[in-house]
Amino acid sequence: MNIIKKQSGAAFKLFKGQKLKVIDPEGMQVSDMVLFNANDIGEKLSSGKTLDFEETILITTNHHLWSNRGSQMMRIIMDTNGRNDFLLAPCSPETFKIMYNIHDYHPSCFENLYTSLAPYGIKPDDIPTAFNIFMNVQFGQDGKLKVLPPLSQKGDYILFEAKMDLIVALTACSAEDSNGGTFKPIHFEILDEMV
Amino acid sequence: MNIIKKQSGAAFKLFKGQKLKVIDPEGMQVSDMVLFNANDIGEKLSSGKTLDFEETILITTNHHLWSNRGSQMMRIIMDTNGRNDFLLAPCSPETFKIMYNIHDYHPSCFENLYTSLAPYGIKPDDIPTAFNIFMNVQFGQDGKLKVLPPLSQKGDYILFEAKMDLIVALTACSAEDSNGGTFKPIHFEILDEMV
Repeated sequence: MNIIKKQSGAAFKLFKGQKLKVIDPEGMQVSDMVLFNANDIGEKLSSGKTLDFEETILITTNHHLWSNRGSQMMRIIMDTNGRNDFLLAPCSPETFKIMYNIHDYHPSCFENLYTSLAPYGIKPDDIPTAFNIFMNVQFGQDGKLKVLPPLSQKGDYILFEAKMDLIVALTACSAEDSNGGTFKPIHFEILDEMV
Repeated sequence: MNIIKKQSGAAFKLFKGQKLKVIDPEGMQVSDMVLFNANDIGEKLSSGKTLDFEETILITTNHHLWSNRGSQMMRIIMDTNGRNDFLLAPCSPETFKIMYNIHDYHPSCFENLYTSLAPYGIKPDDIPTAFNIFMNVQFGQDGKLKVLPPLSQKGDYILFEAKMDLIVALTACSAEDSNGGTFKPIHFEILDEMV
């Protein structure tokens, strides 16, 4: 079991066929995830391709995460909570300035993603819109978006299968409104055997 | 008046303060638009940042289009139709294979964007999710997405103001379902004076 401490991040390789289990150990904690093709980092996770090819805003069990080149990167095998977001960008210094009026330093998923990914040659401008695991963004017919506390409870998890060799980055999200006002860790496991 | 012929594209510079009018001259025709900072092409249009900071899926009059670095790229001054999409990726060869089962060559917004942008040093992998002007993507509370014919009528337009020096690429969209089954041109004007 790997632990991502509150308001931090991690990056690692996940090979084709391996499985990744991302767990909310305490409940009500978001994890932003981005993906890159481990053999060619110009290919990366795309919200636009995923929403297009899956024909839904709400990505969960049996959906695939797709790349900017139109390839499947991961399949979601199981999602015990069932509410994730793929609309909103990772929280960043600009998020805290513009949405929270916080002008001093504040940890952010954007910083935690690009610093974790730097050893792989990935730069801040390369970070795409993340798949925001456990994030509860509600929308109405008028299109208005509301960020509410996650519905995930202690032990909820999402299990992915890699469809290509991947570089994966995960965070324990740093935005107050996205996490019910408190910051908790995220756990993850890499599984080689069939599950 | 500049004309983008059916199933083609164009790219050009738009300087800070200049205005861009994108017109549907016959009605029911989508135009995909992407933006880059003309002085640093690592900065580009971001659907995730725009939906986040504008707090809505439906981007129209008085909203801004934001970059991956959290800066305003354009403001929408006027939108006579009022329905645009910022969820779905530009149609691409993979779109026609996966969504239409067309395996032969088919023109696509993705190809028209990257070939138009090639003279500016922009590569296919750099193309972000486009702002899909006049595109009518409906969504329900269950998240399911439906691409319907555009609601735009002959002469409908959207007027943008550049908030930084930009490289703009526009298409006349090539996907059957997005354009009511027929392909039409798109017109655009660049305006220097106050409008």
